[in-house]
Amino acid sequence: MIKVFNPDRSDWPEICQRPAMDSAEMEKICFPIFREIEDMGDVAVKKYTQKFDGIELAELEVEADELKNASLGVSSDLKSAIKKAYENICAFHKAQRTEKLELETTDGVRCWQEKRPIDKVGLYIPGGTAPLFSTVLMLAIPAVIAGCREIILCTPPGENGKVPASILYTAQLCGVTKVFKVGGVQAIAAMTFGTESIPKVYKIFGPGNQYVTAAKQLSTRYNTAIDMPAGPSELLVMADSTAIPSFVASDLLSQAEHGTDSQVIMVSTSEDIIEQVEIQVMEQLKDLPRKAIAEQSIANSKLIYLSDNEKAVDFINQYGPEHYILCSSEEDYFLKELRNAGSVFIGPYTPESAGDYASGTNHTLPTQGYAKQYSGVNLDSFLKSITFQKISENGLKNIGASIEIMAEAEGLMGHKNAVSIRMDQIRDKNSRS
Amino acid sequence: MIKVFNPDRSDWPEICQRPAMDSAEMEKICFPIFREIEDMGDVAVKKYTQKFDGIELAELEVEADELKNASLGVSSDLKSAIKKAYENICAFHKAQRTEKLELETTDGVRCWQEKRPIDKVGLYIPGGTAPLFSTVLMLAIPAVIAGCREIILCTPPGENGKVPASILYTAQLCGVTKVFKVGGVQAIAAMTFGTESIPKVYKIFGPGNQYVTAAKQLSTRYNTAIDMPAGPSELLVMADSTAIPSFVASDLLSQAEHGTDSQVIMVSTSEDIIEQVEIQVMEQLKDLPRKAIAEQSIANSKLIYLSDNEKAVDFINQYGPEHYILCSSEEDYFLKELRNAGSVFIGPYTPESAGDYASGTNHTLPTQGYAKQYSGVNLDSFLKSITFQKISENGLKNIGASIEIMAEAEGLMGHKNAVSIRMDQIRDKNSRS
Repeated sequence: MIKVFNPDRSDWPEICQRPAMDSAEMEKICFPIFREIEDMGDVAVKKYTQKFDGIELAELEVEADELKNASLGVSSDLKSAIKKAYENICAFHKAQRTEKLELETTDGVRCWQEKRPIDKVGLYIPGGTAPLFSTVLMLAIPAVIAGCREIILCTPPGENGKVPASILYTAQLCGVTKVFKVGGVQAIAAMTFGTESIPKVYKIFGPGNQYVTAAKQLSTRYNTAIDMPAGPSELLVMADSTAIPSFVASDLLSQAEHGTDSQVIMVSTSEDIIEQVEIQVMEQLKDLPRKAIAEQSIANSKLIYLSDNEKAVDFINQYGPEHYILCSSEEDYFLKELRNAGSVFIGPYTPESAGDYASGTNHTLPTQGYAKQYSGVNLDSFLKSITFQKISENGLKNIGASIEIMAEAEGLMGHKNAVSIRMDQIRDKNSRS
Repeated sequence: MIKVFNPDRSDWPEICQRPAMDSAEMEKICFPIFREIEDMGDVAVKKYTQKFDGIELAELEVEADELKNASLGVSSDLKSAIKKAYENICAFHKAQRTEKLELETTDGVRCWQEKRPIDKVGLYIPGGTAPLFSTVLMLAIPAVIAGCREIILCTPPGENGKVPASILYTAQLCGVTKVFKVGGVQAIAAMTFGTESIPKVYKIFGPGNQYVTAAKQLSTRYNTAIDMPAGPSELLVMADSTAIPSFVASDLLSQAEHGTDSQVIMVSTSEDIIEQVEIQVMEQLKDLPRKAIAEQSIANSKLIYLSDNEKAVDFINQYGPEHYILCSSEEDYFLKELRNAGSVFIGPYTPESAGDYASGTNHTLPTQGYAKQYSGVNLDSFLKSITFQKISENGLKNIGASIEIMAEAEGLMGHKNAVSIRMDQIRDKNSRS
């Protein structure tokens, strides 16, 4: 672990640096696949599934029966756990629903804002060594609550050519019925353009490796939106002298096991805690099944001593962590001053894994410092706000002159006319009555 | 005007087609300017201002005195009009503030969501034949209400090397004090990387020509966010037999005068209205100062007859207009069925120009069909949601087992350990007490 004591503020940008991604280079790899899938549809999707996943697919879509029977392939313990998480995530995301907002800004000028669902959304669930059914919960639950009409899910087929039962079970639990055994760049391209089997969507959600990330970025060139740009997962723990070193160590390791490029940072105002956490990390690391991965990210992890809370807060805001665990006796101060973070975990009994799975908050969060300008996925990610206005004759009389003056000053006489012609008619009508 | 009667649904996609933009080609033009401004800062910004605007700038920033004295250069009529608009826009955007949302998802598991401002934002105001001070209102007001710490404004210098007084006056009225006489690609690049004079920002807002649009898109490769992708402005009017043809014509023309590429569409369930509106458009067009521009976009405009409301609604949702004027005796039906639009103007006395200037809604809206997945600019555009969770010992006992089971099923034992180590300590503590 890299230890840094009281770094100069001028060195902070370098400490906060994330691994660079050559997105232009990655896009070049994605581009021909996009072109081919736009032109050839399913045939090209199948070709790339064969090429990258080594699987020959007859049908891209998981059959209704397979989906229905998925429950049989999941242990009842796991089903109960998923249901518990489902309930909490549902409750928290349902609470995010907002009412129509209405205001009469001027007498006779009614303005309102309403949210409507994004009609067609695509959820991407990465493959890999283990099925990430938790991400199904995090994306499908808000999509269903938002009322999106068409929700499709793409995930790469496993070695047996099938999608893991836990993913299918979770999709079904959430109410997602269209699941495609397609992953990688080809999945993103298919959802961008639509193919014979896979519908085109308006917005694509979900994490993925650097190819998927680049493909999502590329898809925004074709009238598609994405949840957010993505990079390796991150955790920053703020631990003062009251923190429990073994707990903090377990959190750092839970982040480290994600991947060799995971970003693991501890900020502390206690040199003693830094020492103890390091000892605990080395101790706990020994028994970790994903030790090989965790060792590499732990080697690059940073334990940063800062002499006071003000500096610590400034550093944390400059870093803008995806996950932020706060173990401090001065919680209120740190929360009040927080400006940039994805999700915050407070106190000794709130490990990051609680939010990863079951507390109710979403685990799809901004990385790479994007917490400075992006929200994590939430109910609003599946909605858009539309504004409305309805003006009465009287209302137009109240604001008409202002509009006319402003339009004229901007040189837009057509804009002015649209008001004048109405005002004339109102005057006419009133003088006649 | 192009008239289309009862087009087949299979022809709708073509009718809904927006003018294509070769964003890749445009990006190639922007890229070297970005590189140079990243490397050379102000020197390069000045070079390109000389090259594109023909202005040699000593200082990029508008001086405090000039800003303070701007009020003197604006007529009192215009100042009153701007203030009226300011009040309405302020009221509507202040009403969009949301409270902290808190929920105990499970006993002992407290989750909440809070919005925090995006610290640094950049507002872009295009130049051109007339000063677009109304866009200053639309971007600066929500930025200030959101509480953004650093709000900067970039706008190209006029022929005299100065920024129009109406823009400076409006900026000052809104509370924006950092204004730069820089426009075009060089402004977007400067806000993306930061220069000696112009601060780097986290999110860039505002409309612009196709170069600015491409530059904003490019800036998202460098950890910057943008409000939304952009294209030519659009208006769709739905007018049934109860609509007033002269009013509708004035609205179509107010859109047409924006630019030769403006998208002007009327959908009607009345052939008679289509005829009358066309006559009115030709009549009103004669006297329009921006006739040359309006004529071209009117020539490409479409008057579409659809035989019933259901078809009309489907078409409108498929088009997803930026501005949508609704003149129908069956208002409620159309509003209920609306899925995709930026801002909606209802009834005979609600011209688009009301929302462009003074009703209170925002005029920075999604074009190109992006209303399907993007909101117009609103207060939330300047905020991000952060989630928080705080779990008690009891709370962890309630959800800990679920987390352990799920983490193990996803092969993430470090995630499981972070819970187990805490549960062990709780059990230990309780057995000792």
